[in-house]
Amino acid sequence: VCPPGVLPLCRPPAWDRAARPPPSPPPAPGLPLAPCRAFSNNKIQVELDESSGVAMMKFKSPPVNSLSLEFLTEFSISLEKLENNRACRGVIITSAVPKIFSSGLDITEMCGKSVEHYAEFWRAVQELWLRLYGSNMVTVAAINGSSPAGGCLVALSCDYRIMAENPKFSIGLNEAQLGIVAPFWFKDTFVNVVGHRTAECSLQLGSLYPAPEAHRLGLVDELVPEEKLMEKAAAVMAQWLALPDHARQLTKTMMRKALLDRLVAHREEDINNFITFISKESIQKSLRMYMEMLKKRKS
Amino acid sequence: VCPPGVLPLCRPPAWDRAARPPPSPPPAPGLPLAPCRAFSNNKIQVELDESSGVAMMKFKSPPVNSLSLEFLTEFSISLEKLENNRACRGVIITSAVPKIFSSGLDITEMCGKSVEHYAEFWRAVQELWLRLYGSNMVTVAAINGSSPAGGCLVALSCDYRIMAENPKFSIGLNEAQLGIVAPFWFKDTFVNVVGHRTAECSLQLGSLYPAPEAHRLGLVDELVPEEKLMEKAAAVMAQWLALPDHARQLTKTMMRKALLDRLVAHREEDINNFITFISKESIQKSLRMYMEMLKKRKS
Amino acid sequence: VCPPGVLPLCRPPAWDRAARPPPSPPPAPGLPLAPCRAFSNNKIQVELDESSGVAMMKFKSPPVNSLSLEFLTEFSISLEKLENNRACRGVIITSAVPKIFSSGLDITEMCGKSVEHYAEFWRAVQELWLRLYGSNMVTVAAINGSSPAGGCLVALSCDYRIMAENPKFSIGLNEAQLGIVAPFWFKDTFVNVVGHRTAECSLQLGSLYPAPEAHRLGLVDELVPEEKLMEKAAAVMAQWLALPDHARQLTKTMMRKALLDRLVAHREEDINNFITFISKESIQKSLRMYMEMLKKRKS
Repeated sequence: VCPPGVLPLCRPPAWDRAARPPPSPPPAPGLPLAPCRAFSNNKIQVELDESSGVAMMKFKSPPVNSLSLEFLTEFSISLEKLENNRACRGVIITSAVPKIFSSGLDITEMCGKSVEHYAEFWRAVQELWLRLYGSNMVTVAAINGSSPAGGCLVALSCDYRIMAENPKFSIGLNEAQLGIVAPFWFKDTFVNVVGHRTAECSLQLGSLYPAPEAHRLGLVDELVPEEKLMEKAAAVMAQWLALPDHARQLTKTMMRKALLDRLVAHREEDINNFITFISKESIQKSLRMYMEMLKKRKS
Repeated sequence: VCPPGVLPLCRPPAWDRAARPPPSPPPAPGLPLAPCRAFSNNKIQVELDESSGVAMMKFKSPPVNSLSLEFLTEFSISLEKLENNRACRGVIITSAVPKIFSSGLDITEMCGKSVEHYAEFWRAVQELWLRLYGSNMVTVAAINGSSPAGGCLVALSCDYRIMAENPKFSIGLNEAQLGIVAPFWFKDTFVNVVGHRTAECSLQLGSLYPAPEAHRLGLVDELVPEEKLMEKAAAVMAQWLALPDHARQLTKTMMRKALLDRLVAHREEDINNFITFISKESIQKSLRMYMEMLKKRKS
Repeated sequence: VCPPGVLPLCRPPAWDRAARPPPSPPPAPGLPLAPCRAFSNNKIQVELDESSGVAMMKFKSPPVNSLSLEFLTEFSISLEKLENNRACRGVIITSAVPKIFSSGLDITEMCGKSVEHYAEFWRAVQELWLRLYGSNMVTVAAINGSSPAGGCLVALSCDYRIMAENPKFSIGLNEAQLGIVAPFWFKDTFVNVVGHRTAECSLQLGSLYPAPEAHRLGLVDELVPEEKLMEKAAAVMAQWLALPDHARQLTKTMMRKALLDRLVAHREEDINNFITFISKESIQKSLRMYMEMLKKRKS
């Protein structure tokens, strides 16, 4: 499936290694094969340290790093670039916005828009998860702020989660609080981290956990003082990169392939479910009320 | 699938929302639509507080609330009535008999009876579980006494389990102690609460756990002093009811549908397995011995 | 499926109770039906105490009880003999070599050999696991030394694991450290013991855990001082044997059958995967380097 001559760059995510063409086109003729050291976009800043093979990915979309269609697209493209860059073996994901890792899916993308827009948005959410959960790179979430709903999903999809121990920062899949339902693959990802019982209870209550409680439940792997977060993330990354890539990647695929395959097999159905659900007037109303509440709280 | 005009009452359990006709007939003409406040039956007392939307269901079948065919039938019908009552959003299940929540399946129903009786009995056990595990209502078990075998299954099928912290009260799926085997859906329900390893060990040893140990394993969610049990159950219920019903119900279905579907798909096979197993002379003998032992212990 | 006249001896492992002929031929005419009290082989010493029904199986293949083809074959045959011996209800598995339980699969069997040899070796690994994980007997691992990789799998396949509390003894599926990948049924067995999250992290890092950490993760069930290990193993065995065999065996089958079936269904494919992987020059090279390192460390 890889065009001749670009094999070294051809490293699609684990979930479609066999089935799909390489996710990005080969570099244009004349461009050097060794790619970007740093690329800044609108919403995410990416820096690759080629000596260590570790990229730092920082969300910088104030006020709350919400996962808009634009943000998700940039996120997927950034991951894809790194995935295809032989010099990059791992990514640390963190936030450049104080007190917030990511607030999750952007509600304005789900409110008062066309069916076509909902479909495009949801496909972008799926794409991001497929790419992140199925990444061949080592992915470490350095959670330096609150991380509800889709923000929590981003963290859950990494290989390892380190959180600032500040009890004011909370994390969880709190969709139910907004009257909406996490899709099955959010749920599956969650169950694989915290087990069925905690997920069942937590998803129904839309629980957000302060960092210490999140750690107790296994939702995050480690807590450190906020000022030590990046140092710790780098140390954990070094530990994971000490292993041979090939064996680690095959092992990761073995652990995650069933879930990735499940979404790939039901992708259109999942989009239709989302559209049907989100188009309901009762759901639209409850999202509008939630946005009103957010606005009032801010002012 | 709902006859016109009765839609508001039509709320089948989650596991057959799409596939089956509403579980109860519409109310007879002339009867008021707003249903029962309290209905007392032979073996279970039910009281609905319409202001909170919470029903209290109390097992009152001395000496040990054993799950006889009659008890199971009444239990299923009571759940069905509440499920179809728009005023009811949650049920607290507890016992009116001191020191015992429920002793589990009534052994006399499994001893020296006809094949037809075994089939009817087992179908009633299945029906109760399908209805309770798949309930759209919030279900809280307030476990105020011991709860072996089928009694434990009732508790495991609820959304949340609070137990009196008395270490003399024990709970567990102890079928193996009697020489019998918990069916696959008891096992599946158990695994979803405590995980595979604890279930594997516990089911093989037929372990009964004192309340503190049960709490440590996650078999129950919380322990409180016995005199605070109902107060705590009401508080937990209020917390669950603070969430929008629709999102919570869809989430519950997402978590439990696979298990419910599995029994629905293998229901007749499961009945036949039960009949074959229970009809063996060796099993009959060991159940008779167990009943003898219970009688002696009593006198 | 059992030839007439030998029914009492006919007890195939749980995973093929229905489908296959009895795993061993009936005893030759003229031989007494009550078999071996003790049989010593080259690499494993087996002693059966007929009064308790408990066999002691001791690995005695210095220096490190590595699972060579010869060892695996002897191990499978020993289990088969005990399985078919009505006098035997349980096995305690331990090591006669100080400080090591088993070092896992013998790397020399995977290095520089023919494809036919790899196939034969891998089939023997599968056979051992099918027999041990699916055993109808109660199996207790008394882990009196380190137990990496395949040694850990042997322990994980038992019903209960007791480990000497010496923190110098470590245990884990550390295949990734050697640049190789644990097959899916190692992974499944591991997930069923420690859950998905711990397995995912642990397998990717190839983690070896000192005994106390292994206990904390649930990888072993209990720690005891080394001098109490055998006493404790006997006590645990007695506790498991207090249950009626039939119910316990059916329960064990219910818990483990899905995994056993999965390997049985993909056995040839799994062998081919192993051969393809192990035949790669990069893998061969990394195994040779590992062996060099072991040799140097020794001298």
